[in-house]
Amino acid sequence: MSTLPSKELEVFPNPKPSRDYTIRIETPEFTCLCPKTGQPDFATLKLEYIPDVLCVELKSWKLYLWSFRDEGAFHEDVSNRILDDLVSALNPRYAKLTAEFNVRGGVYTTVVVEHESQP
Amino acid sequence: MSTLPSKELEVFPNPKPSRDYTIRIETPEFTCLCPKTGQPDFATLKLEYIPDVLCVELKSWKLYLWSFRDEGAFHEDVSNRILDDLVSALNPRYAKLTAEFNVRGGVYTTVVVEHESQP
Amino acid sequence: MSTLPSKELEVFPNPKPSRDYTIRIETPEFTCLCPKTGQPDFATLKLEYIPDVLCVELKSWKLYLWSFRDEGAFHEDVSNRILDDLVSALNPRYAKLTAEFNVRGGVYTTVVVEHESQP
Amino acid sequence: MSTLPSKELEVFPNPKPSRDYTIRIETPEFTCLCPKTGQPDFATLKLEYIPDVLCVELKSWKLYLWSFRDEGAFHEDVSNRILDDLVSALNPRYAKLTAEFNVRGGVYTTVVVEHESQP
Amino acid sequence: MSTLPSKELEVFPNPKPSRDYTIRIETPEFTCLCPKTGQPDFATLKLEYIPDVLCVELKSWKLYLWSFRDEGAFHEDVSNRILDDLVSALNPRYAKLTAEFNVRGGVYTTVVVEHESQP
Amino acid sequence: MSTLPSKELEVFPNPKPSRDYTIRIETPEFTCLCPKTGQPDFATLKLEYIPDVLCVELKSWKLYLWSFRDEGAFHEDVSNRILDDLVSALNPRYAKLTAEFNVRGGVYTTVVVEHESQP
Amino acid sequence: MSTLPSKELEVFPNPKPSRDYTIRIETPEFTCLCPKTGQPDFATLKLEYIPDVLCVELKSWKLYLWSFRDEGAFHEDVSNRILDDLVSALNPRYAKLTAEFNVRGGVYTTVVVEHESQP
Amino acid sequence: MSTLPSKELEVFPNPKPSRDYTIRIETPEFTCLCPKTGQPDFATLKLEYIPDVLCVELKSWKLYLWSFRDEGAFHEDVSNRILDDLVSALNPRYAKLTAEFNVRGGVYTTVVVEHESQP
Amino acid sequence: MSTLPSKELEVFPNPKPSRDYTIRIETPEFTCLCPKTGQPDFATLKLEYIPDVLCVELKSWKLYLWSFRDEGAFHEDVSNRILDDLVSALNPRYAKLTAEFNVRGGVYTTVVVEHESQP
Amino acid sequence: MSTLPSKELEVFPNPKPSRDYTIRIETPEFTCLCPKTGQPDFATLKLEYIPDVLCVELKSWKLYLWSFRDEGAFHEDVSNRILDDLVSALNPRYAKLTAEFNVRGGVYTTVVVEHESQP
Repeated sequence: MSTLPSKELEVFPNPKPSRDYTIRIETPEFTCLCPKTGQPDFATLKLEYIPDVLCVELKSWKLYLWSFRDEGAFHEDVSNRILDDLVSALNPRYAKLTAEFNVRGGVYTTVVVEHESQP
Repeated sequence: MSTLPSKELEVFPNPKPSRDYTIRIETPEFTCLCPKTGQPDFATLKLEYIPDVLCVELKSWKLYLWSFRDEGAFHEDVSNRILDDLVSALNPRYAKLTAEFNVRGGVYTTVVVEHESQP
Repeated sequence: MSTLPSKELEVFPNPKPSRDYTIRIETPEFTCLCPKTGQPDFATLKLEYIPDVLCVELKSWKLYLWSFRDEGAFHEDVSNRILDDLVSALNPRYAKLTAEFNVRGGVYTTVVVEHESQP
Repeated sequence: MSTLPSKELEVFPNPKPSRDYTIRIETPEFTCLCPKTGQPDFATLKLEYIPDVLCVELKSWKLYLWSFRDEGAFHEDVSNRILDDLVSALNPRYAKLTAEFNVRGGVYTTVVVEHESQP
Repeated sequence: MSTLPSKELEVFPNPKPSRDYTIRIETPEFTCLCPKTGQPDFATLKLEYIPDVLCVELKSWKLYLWSFRDEGAFHEDVSNRILDDLVSALNPRYAKLTAEFNVRGGVYTTVVVEHESQP
Repeated sequence: MSTLPSKELEVFPNPKPSRDYTIRIETPEFTCLCPKTGQPDFATLKLEYIPDVLCVELKSWKLYLWSFRDEGAFHEDVSNRILDDLVSALNPRYAKLTAEFNVRGGVYTTVVVEHESQP
Repeated sequence: MSTLPSKELEVFPNPKPSRDYTIRIETPEFTCLCPKTGQPDFATLKLEYIPDVLCVELKSWKLYLWSFRDEGAFHEDVSNRILDDLVSALNPRYAKLTAEFNVRGGVYTTVVVEHESQP
Repeated sequence: MSTLPSKELEVFPNPKPSRDYTIRIETPEFTCLCPKTGQPDFATLKLEYIPDVLCVELKSWKLYLWSFRDEGAFHEDVSNRILDDLVSALNPRYAKLTAEFNVRGGVYTTVVVEHESQP
Repeated sequence: MSTLPSKELEVFPNPKPSRDYTIRIETPEFTCLCPKTGQPDFATLKLEYIPDVLCVELKSWKLYLWSFRDEGAFHEDVSNRILDDLVSALNPRYAKLTAEFNVRGGVYTTVVVEHESQP
Repeated sequence: MSTLPSKELEVFPNPKPSRDYTIRIETPEFTCLCPKTGQPDFATLKLEYIPDVLCVELKSWKLYLWSFRDEGAFHEDVSNRILDDLVSALNPRYAKLTAEFNVRGGVYTTVVVEHESQP
């Protein structure tokens, strides 16, 4: 597996697809750039999902988030895009992403995005 | 965009209108005046909404809240008015405003106001 | 308005009766007397209600609670009586009172009383 | 009322039987003996109940819990027995007992027992 | 009972099978090895179950968890296996295992696995 | 001993006068009246002292603090007077009283008073 | 006493000048304007002082802090000026002011200023 | 070693007598009886000591504290006696015992006792 | 002033050089790269200093810390270099930098560096 | 560098030997075996030291602590040995190790060991 930032999410087979269960992955180390000012933004990302046949590899998730370090990204847009990328890679039964951005101008912003698979 | 207090809320297009998702914006820096005594009141405002086709611009929300700094405002009334202004500007699918006022006379007051769009 | 303890609760018109919304009022400074021993009891009172056409005036609520300072009162009984008085004065759509009494004899007691208006 | 440990729970008439309301009684001072080793066990007991026509007298509850000080008691069994005794004495509309035992061998054990009256 | 690590879970008869009630057992001292690097992993395990005719003996649960100390184990897989072993030994009416793994590479992972008995 | 409020502090002989040691007594239940407005004030009182030949009896300390319930008292003055009364009754080697008053008008006030015996 | 913002600090005689003791006054409701941008700044102010012959009246302190609401003020400068004003009004034996400003641009700033009287 | 309550403290040789170092032992499970009322008291005991040639065996400390379970004991006296027993058994270079008793009558009491060896 | 990352620290005259006082500046948003692996590191930086004739401008401090975003930096070295740069720019009477790095491999590292001016 | 457990501590040159500064390294993942029962013990280890000419490499510290995983170790002895090994490898100007062991038998034990270099 690479140790460079990458938009590719690596996956592995769910060891227990017969059971609905939940995986939570939290990282307080997400950073990107503000598209208006170019200055750094920071967030804590909390992912929670119910795998179907695939799980996301943890190190790959870290490298994926690292890939935003030099990108401009609006709060609402980047939260939706990250969830979309996860859904494309895993097609989970359920997924929720909570992005808690650091305070800017006295304002704390959090974006919560959910996905449910279509039966 | 102005950098002066303003009752106008600026908006931008929701980047993912096909999905119901939640945006939370919290500011601990709301202040207005007590209509009875003229003395300052302080509150933490927590907004949570599901956008339809529009999102509220964060800096504009800050300037909007700033516009109450020199106004007299009753707790119950101002909480409803702020939510009404947001609904007028965004027409969100759902919105909730929680206003936690600082203690006065040994009493802590919180007002929680909700809006759901009509189908 | 008086500044003396009083069993009268003052009210004012709900500024937004067309909307169901919630008002929470918390005071950590309730004190009465134990009817058995005559010694002081202390509690934190948390009121939460949905107003109909009337709201309770905050200072009046404080003076009302003050009126119990020299009264004997059992935990279960006084919690119900305070809610009854609020319901009589406001006829709210919903009300809940939580009374958290200070520890006595190694025991912490809380009484939670609710009211819903009859349609 | 006695001031000795006692298996008898004293009761008094519910002052507001026309209303469903909740009484919570928490004590961090429960202790009994381990039936296997004879060594002391400790727990925090949290009782929550909706009274019907009777309430439990607080001091009597304290003396009742004291009566286990010199008894051997398994976690699961004693939690069920305490709830059964309360139900026998009060016949409440609802009751829940949560027993949080102190850590033993790196393991924290909690037992949660509920009762609902039969209509 | 043995005092050695063991995959065998010892059980005892549920003292109150006529009632649905909950037993929670938490240990912050689970450790196994990472199958990729061979280095130690650590987790807090929280078990919650509703017993049917059998309960798990606490010391036996501790020895069972100890048996993973020298084993390689993936987060998702080991969480499912531990729940499966408990279900095999107890056949509980309900069981949930929450495994909160220590941070690795800036990422906190939690796996939540549930079982409900078939009627 | 009386069970009425009393300005008299009861004492008992220090069981270990040969050793300097510290006794801390904290009560969150002090209440008096504001001399300006007549309305109740509340405080947490923290006493810490090194006894000489006498210790203060705990229940007597509680009854002493109770005696302020119907008295007007300024924060700075009452804190000094309580320490003076303790010093008169016990003549301790050292004593410190910390009075943390509840918030009034958005302002939290604490008074810290110390005494050291003269050699 | 006025109920308007005022740069005048009112004082009263220290009730116990023979003793060195400490008075702490904390308010989380200080607000002024940023001299560069004109936008509001917020801070929690913690004052601690040992009175000599004068104490500061609490309501007057609140009105004094209120007087900065419409003034531009740099963090370092305003903290020193507030302490200077207090020293001018009270000539205390000791005084310390801690001003904890709300986060701006991801940066939390605190200024701590002390004064000791000259013998 | 016995597994019964015992006033005897067992010791073992300090593995590093050439170095001054500190051992802290905390137990939240101390209980004795109130000599006035016969009712149970509870405390958290925090021991901190610098060993000379002997250390106290941990299980023995637990059995020693257990020996107070059926004894009447005043707060100030029992704290001094426990430290005296430890000093007799170990002759440590330094020792401090902090006994934090559970709240009684709204009052929290802590006793702090220290010993330094004579050179 | 620039809004780009910069190694230059801007300064302004100390408004009260006649008094020793303390300025604390904390940012939880420091990030650099690990020189061994190239992967991002994160830290909270806490600066505390006593100004002499110059103070550091806050926005400039933020831009200075931003300049490390793409640099490789060892924990111990970068902490010393940042303090050295501040000392070169301000020549403060005293300065302390605390760098609390995010956990890596189960290990939390903090570096604390101090400077005192030579008289 | 090896990725196996090892008693060897690797070092690197202190990048700023001209300055006394402090490095803190905390790991909550220390585990060894109880020499009496063979069962696992767990501890949080907090190291704080002032380097002279050498610093300890972080990964090497982690591998060193890992080397105790299968060893029997008494609390007091292992804490002293770990500090001795660090002193042998680094000869630091100052070092302190705090070992906070997990609760056993209701007892929480902490060992604090210090070293100062001889001038």
